[in-house]
Amino acid sequence: MKLSTQQNMINAFGGESQANMRYLHFATQAEKENFPNVARLFRAIAQAEYIHAGDHYRCLKHLDGGFVANSMAAFGPGDTSKNLKLAIAGEEFEITEMYPTYIEVAKYQGEKDAQRSFEWSYGTEIEHKKLFEKAKQAVDGGSDVELGPVQVCEVCGYTVEGDAPDICPLCKSPKEKFTAFIS
Amino acid sequence: MKLSTQQNMINAFGGESQANMRYLHFATQAEKENFPNVARLFRAIAQAEYIHAGDHYRCLKHLDGGFVANSMAAFGPGDTSKNLKLAIAGEEFEITEMYPTYIEVAKYQGEKDAQRSFEWSYGTEIEHKKLFEKAKQAVDGGSDVELGPVQVCEVCGYTVEGDAPDICPLCKSPKEKFTAFIS
Ligand SMILES: [Fe+2]
Ligand SMILES: [Fe+2]
Ligand SMILES: [Fe+2]
Ligand SMILES: [Fe+2]
Ligand SMILES: [Fe+2]
Ligand SMILES: [Fe+2]
Repeated sequence: MKLSTQQNMINAFGGESQANMRYLHFATQAEKENFPNVARLFRAIAQAEYIHAGDHYRCLKHLDGGFVANSMAAFGPGDTSKNLKLAIAGEEFEITEMYPTYIEVAKYQGEKDAQRSFEWSYGTEIEHKKLFEKAKQAVDGGSDVELGPVQVCEVCGYTVEGDAPDICPLCKSPKEKFTAFIS
Repeated sequence: MKLSTQQNMINAFGGESQANMRYLHFATQAEKENFPNVARLFRAIAQAEYIHAGDHYRCLKHLDGGFVANSMAAFGPGDTSKNLKLAIAGEEFEITEMYPTYIEVAKYQGEKDAQRSFEWSYGTEIEHKKLFEKAKQAVDGGSDVELGPVQVCEVCGYTVEGDAPDICPLCKSPKEKFTAFIS
């Protein structure tokens, strides 16, 4: 793997790992504030980030040892409204800067497996940002978010509210590959 | 918080998040190779890293936005023997370089809360390295590790095989704060 794409992949593993961790801790905070649907959304999306991190990590199986990940992450936990703001900012960065540039470099370097792993994350984060925005609107209005089942594709992390699609729009896996997070 | 300690805390959150993520994926691999006790050890220690990451993250609640975490992490997943080698190398780095220097800087800067969070991790990683070494010896001999309950303190992450101590040696929490990972 070309070194620029490799470093981007290392950074992306770091970013996804930290997003997973933040969302699990944010879920606990949402439970304390009695927002069970927001907590469920955080846990579902944490699972998607776990899948992204695993996909990226497996792209690096040619390595054998320590490397420094340089990963932008959102800091400063607070109440659920603040945590949702941080979550939205993190997804926004991934959609507008991180994954678009990582995809561009992977294309330029002919790294097709890396490009695919970045594209699966990119396509997912767009949905994450929308779901977190919906949750923030509810929480800032003083109530829990109204939320159907949240479906997470176990292959690519694609996340959608409602019924699972017959075919995952990102990785083309069948419906059976979706895990539902229900209340 | 002084900026050098703050950056170390940001890096430590990144490192713990990535360790948690690696160990969860390594647990899945160990299950595939029919090493259920090694898988259980990975899941218990992943939980300890989750606690470390949360303790560090809460030390940063004065922040509000994006920062870059620079976190050394072990890359190159393979079979369980290789994964244990990577896990041992990661714990070794934390024990011999990362946490000792972060603790020294926190002491020098008078950052007592940060120092405590780093010390809790440091004291835990020593036990993690020993447990992973025991597991690697068994796996390299072709069998699963013999392993009693693995106890994880939910306050500081302290990890020990066997009975939970009456008082956590790191954070002084009572026995009730330990979660047992049993087969
Ligand atoms: Fe992601
Ligand atoms: Fe996301
Ligand atoms: Fe998918
Ligand atoms: Fe740790
Ligand atoms: Fe550890
Ligand atoms: Fe403890």
